[in-house]
Amino acid sequence: MDLAANERIDELRRDGTKIIQSPDVFAFSLDAVLLADFARVRRQDQVVDLAAGNGAVGLFVAGRVPGVHVTMVELQPQLAAMARRSVALNHFDDRVRVVEGDLAKTWDHVAKDSVDVVMCNPPYFKVQPGSVQNPNTALALARHELTTDFATVARITAGLLKTGGKAFFVHRPDRLVELLSTLADADLAPKRIRFVHPKAGKEANMVLIEAIRTGRPDGVRIMPPFVVYGEDGQYTPEMAAIFND
Amino acid sequence: MDLAANERIDELRRDGTKIIQSPDVFAFSLDAVLLADFARVRRQDQVVDLAAGNGAVGLFVAGRVPGVHVTMVELQPQLAAMARRSVALNHFDDRVRVVEGDLAKTWDHVAKDSVDVVMCNPPYFKVQPGSVQNPNTALALARHELTTDFATVARITAGLLKTGGKAFFVHRPDRLVELLSTLADADLAPKRIRFVHPKAGKEANMVLIEAIRTGRPDGVRIMPPFVVYGEDGQYTPEMAAIFND
Repeated sequence: MDLAANERIDELRRDGTKIIQSPDVFAFSLDAVLLADFARVRRQDQVVDLAAGNGAVGLFVAGRVPGVHVTMVELQPQLAAMARRSVALNHFDDRVRVVEGDLAKTWDHVAKDSVDVVMCNPPYFKVQPGSVQNPNTALALARHELTTDFATVARITAGLLKTGGKAFFVHRPDRLVELLSTLADADLAPKRIRFVHPKAGKEANMVLIEAIRTGRPDGVRIMPPFVVYGEDGQYTPEMAAIFND
Repeated sequence: MDLAANERIDELRRDGTKIIQSPDVFAFSLDAVLLADFARVRRQDQVVDLAAGNGAVGLFVAGRVPGVHVTMVELQPQLAAMARRSVALNHFDDRVRVVEGDLAKTWDHVAKDSVDVVMCNPPYFKVQPGSVQNPNTALALARHELTTDFATVARITAGLLKTGGKAFFVHRPDRLVELLSTLADADLAPKRIRFVHPKAGKEANMVLIEAIRTGRPDGVRIMPPFVVYGEDGQYTPEMAAIFND
């Protein structure tokens, strides 16, 4: 396996799933790990990972769920190439593919109404004047809505999903009101919401959302809070279990 | 103080605030206690408590915040009378009044754009065919949207509030999506949301929402989870502190 300068191979899970990343360019974060854990994926599901970055979410799910098929969609050539090399490294070539391109064009690569599960860890931050220092860096593109936005993600997701198919998102809770109305506009009905708190007494800094295509808008469940760190500063048992499963 | 059959006087808080209630007719619940605690009320604020029931929320706030003025609005004569007698029992007559009537007519009693804080613990349940066994009981009217609904509550609330005035609601989390869109339609922007979990590992069964009149829709904060019972089945320290403050 050829690694570029500053790239390294990290282990995603104790089962041995590996990922190539580079602190200089892009490294997956806890958000991706929590999204992959939150997503309910069954064997044989057709899964699409939008804005896949270096592929952490899709690799995590492919490592956990035998038989699942994943299509990763990533705009940035450097990240798509990293994801592709990680797929090969894990011998997932027969069931994971990487599409390099704008997620808005995903329907050109994956048939509409054909997907069981869409996962997306999208750029979180709206672009305000002066809010992005270096709009061409990989990190800026991954964090800021420079090349896509949540309305586009929701629209593309709904088009990909079969009726009753499920979407899983991780996002920032300060945008909750807008996220829910955007999902409703795309005919995606939230079914489960889980807030992630760094500690039990702290405000949430992430939200995990499960939505179903063409569901009824009522009946969302607010799951038990996910707490990352205990009072002792160590991972909580639930957090630790995700890495050790 | 005259008590009717089966009425009793309960102590709301250790500071001595008392409330008249009747298990046969209506007794306040934890929801009211948590709403009153969640509401941020300052001395001299003009406060309106919509769908006040036997007055628990308003009495709790009046007992905690010296100088605050509260108008309770309650449709059911029997409950309004109980609230009025509780106001007298606590000697709050100079700053708490009870209006008996439909909350949709509140603007007839309290000037629009004049209120600092609106609090409401509204009926939670939509009326479906067959969902209400005895639509004339006090409990049915308090629990089901027979005489009002959340859209009406939000519209009346927004009309009462000064610009920048705050509303505090307690409701059921399964209606979260609709609650947030209804608030947006009424020009009320959620600022803080707190989910209440019976235990740390259980789904939320209540949601507390703070909204501001004419605020920007982004920037909602998801507060630390409120957990009612510890693993030992006793109130958590935070829950116990509300009764003991």
